[in-house]
Amino acid sequence: MNEVIDFIHTSRDRYIDELSHFLAIPSVSALPEHAEDVARCAEWTVAQLEQVGLENVRLIETPGNPVVYADWLHAGDDVPTILFYGHYDVQPVDPLDEWVTPPFEATVRDGALYARGAADDKGQVFMHFKAVEATLKQTGELPVNIKFILEGEEEIGSEHLDGFVRDHGDQLAADVVVISDTPMFERGVPSICYGLRGLTYLQIDLRGTNSDLHSGSFGGAVANPALVLAQILGQMKDRGGRVKIPGFYDDVRDLSDEERAEFAKLPFSERQYRRELGAPKLYGERGFTTLERVWGRPTFEVNGLLSGFTGEGAKTVIPAVAMAKVSMRLVPDQDPDKIAELFEKYLRRVTPKTVELTLTKMHTGKPWMTEFDDPYVQAAGRAIEKGFGRAPVFNREGGSIPVVATFQEILGLPSVLFGIGLPDENAHAPNEKLDLTNFHNGVVASAALYEEIGKLPRQ
Amino acid sequence: MNEVIDFIHTSRDRYIDELSHFLAIPSVSALPEHAEDVARCAEWTVAQLEQVGLENVRLIETPGNPVVYADWLHAGDDVPTILFYGHYDVQPVDPLDEWVTPPFEATVRDGALYARGAADDKGQVFMHFKAVEATLKQTGELPVNIKFILEGEEEIGSEHLDGFVRDHGDQLAADVVVISDTPMFERGVPSICYGLRGLTYLQIDLRGTNSDLHSGSFGGAVANPALVLAQILGQMKDRGGRVKIPGFYDDVRDLSDEERAEFAKLPFSERQYRRELGAPKLYGERGFTTLERVWGRPTFEVNGLLSGFTGEGAKTVIPAVAMAKVSMRLVPDQDPDKIAELFEKYLRRVTPKTVELTLTKMHTGKPWMTEFDDPYVQAAGRAIEKGFGRAPVFNREGGSIPVVATFQEILGLPSVLFGIGLPDENAHAPNEKLDLTNFHNGVVASAALYEEIGKLPRQ
Repeated sequence: MNEVIDFIHTSRDRYIDELSHFLAIPSVSALPEHAEDVARCAEWTVAQLEQVGLENVRLIETPGNPVVYADWLHAGDDVPTILFYGHYDVQPVDPLDEWVTPPFEATVRDGALYARGAADDKGQVFMHFKAVEATLKQTGELPVNIKFILEGEEEIGSEHLDGFVRDHGDQLAADVVVISDTPMFERGVPSICYGLRGLTYLQIDLRGTNSDLHSGSFGGAVANPALVLAQILGQMKDRGGRVKIPGFYDDVRDLSDEERAEFAKLPFSERQYRRELGAPKLYGERGFTTLERVWGRPTFEVNGLLSGFTGEGAKTVIPAVAMAKVSMRLVPDQDPDKIAELFEKYLRRVTPKTVELTLTKMHTGKPWMTEFDDPYVQAAGRAIEKGFGRAPVFNREGGSIPVVATFQEILGLPSVLFGIGLPDENAHAPNEKLDLTNFHNGVVASAALYEEIGKLPRQ
Repeated sequence: MNEVIDFIHTSRDRYIDELSHFLAIPSVSALPEHAEDVARCAEWTVAQLEQVGLENVRLIETPGNPVVYADWLHAGDDVPTILFYGHYDVQPVDPLDEWVTPPFEATVRDGALYARGAADDKGQVFMHFKAVEATLKQTGELPVNIKFILEGEEEIGSEHLDGFVRDHGDQLAADVVVISDTPMFERGVPSICYGLRGLTYLQIDLRGTNSDLHSGSFGGAVANPALVLAQILGQMKDRGGRVKIPGFYDDVRDLSDEERAEFAKLPFSERQYRRELGAPKLYGERGFTTLERVWGRPTFEVNGLLSGFTGEGAKTVIPAVAMAKVSMRLVPDQDPDKIAELFEKYLRRVTPKTVELTLTKMHTGKPWMTEFDDPYVQAAGRAIEKGFGRAPVFNREGGSIPVVATFQEILGLPSVLFGIGLPDENAHAPNEKLDLTNFHNGVVASAALYEEIGKLPRQ
């Protein structure tokens, strides 16, 4: 292991250079104009996987963006097989003018690499590529069997991944899934994540009239869809921050006393958190701490609003249409489809007959939880300790990785969430970045993870 | 007068051709990128006023867009002087993709001329240019003294007009103001407008955090400014359509029983109105008819909403900021500045401390009413009858022409609102148009108006 670690330490500059090429490809899956970039990024990934020494590298077509596959399966039948999952697509970059440096020109500042995808997920995926490379280069073999799949639709709901996993069940057979797509608890506090929230994301479109109207000539005579939209959205949460959709909390698994006690022990300052976010005041569901709200409680968010005149100056118009993108983060055992139904029912009840409503379901993801004492989770803890010099804490995460549920349901596989991002690295926001110390520690930890899992008996 | 009318009738095609050149200039005052077009439009207007035979034509600079001035003052001291006011700037054109033909390529369809500014206000201004031209060409003189001023900032709140009128009081001395910037009651029902609503227009900006946040990692821990904005706007009107701002109705002059009876006699079908607008249902303040709501009652409107991700697809973001453009239409005797203060007070009360609020006052306009039996109003009624073959009805208007109050307050002048647009001509919306029959009748009526006012003794 020492020669592997030495190799990793002497490769730091090369890693940044290579990763910058990966980050330069604007593989924004949400925007049709980037379709070619997404394809180009898949091809770059293929070339990279071949270069690090993996085998059977191929690009597998789906009805959407292709999946990149690779493996190395020479560790023996009695050694476990890791299925590594990551994604090569990234979030959109708007608002572009808030980026200090261009989102697709990776730039080092203050020990971090700034670019769209640096943390989510190219940087964390690349960390595993480099752990494989270092181990193969220095030892000629891997201590574990490993399969990589990298998808290009994670940021748009992984629409075709379920089908892909179903269709390629034999090819993907493994003992454990490893995913690096979550942040650690905070700088210097590495963590293993044992729970994720799910998601139901929808778009609301209201139409009031055939076309925009002069607000002088018509103001007061017809419903204003922008105002109706506000009135509707204003009814989604009560003053205590509780979602008002009837039945919304029916299937929520309560936080255990043990969990609440563990969360309370974590080094977390609400004051510093607030200050870092620049929020005048924290706000959430009454009766819960911030960590409990984010990790263990569902919520309703407005992700986008658009109606009428939004340029500079004033235009006295009654908009014909108004649009909102909304989403709900869900916790075990809420079901995203059932929640979508409850939402639709409530929405139709609170929407007046003065407007035409169109509701579009965008995507869903199931919430997920695993057990602390799982041997793979424990192995991951030891690997983290080798890379970062301290044992991880066990936490939950507010985000969604719907594929974790996919692997559980379709392949019957447990997942280990082995993330090395930081919570303030602006995944999904301008100025996304990746701490370079964490990245390099993460390459060591990934190599150690393969070794730790390689020591385990197959279950 | 007959030779003037003959001249007008034989000039129809030329009028459309010339007006199309006027309409081809995208003089959108709200958008900085059209600054040169606005300047070019002012110059086109100067050339046009010279061509029709007016004198002392000049472009007068203001701190904003220039005012175009012209006069003809040879009718004698005992004959009244008309101050004609209009504007050469136009509204923005978005959403552009809803226009059937390009907004700055005037196109005749079904007896109407389609272009941005056709009704508001270039077409109606041009009607007066042509009435002057026909009268001067055929009789060598005008029956009245007349001064024209045309401003380039009407669609952005006439910010510099008050100062201009104040600074040029002597130059603008007159007996009555004539403005053609309102629609007639409906096709075949010409009207004289005796009341206008005022306006207070503001922009609300909320900031929740320093930057957009991942809704998974942070959802539930901080206020969502888009949702807060919705909650705030949702508190502006009650279920009965009444504005909830305390004190909002304090200065509202009630509709008289006589007015309500007159409105009720007008040929107006709520069903047809609803159908033409394409609204599923009409909606407004409880206890009032549609005409009463639009002409005689104040209202609150949302003119624009923008927050977070509004592109195609789904982005799981908590927006850092949310913006709304809002406006209130006001009736006599509400004061726009006082209403802005009441609004601000209420807004600050209903805005939670979880967001930073910035309120920007965009512009204001005072409501206005005049008397039916004013001799100039009666003269305008006779002129309308000459142009359109039937006596006008007397109505109020829901829109705002703040300069009417300016002329009243600064110059002490009454205004006659002599508009020939139609209510469905899409002023401020895509596919703006002007009915060509009304336009030609309007040129005759304008020439008749000069004659009728010329017969009146100076007051």
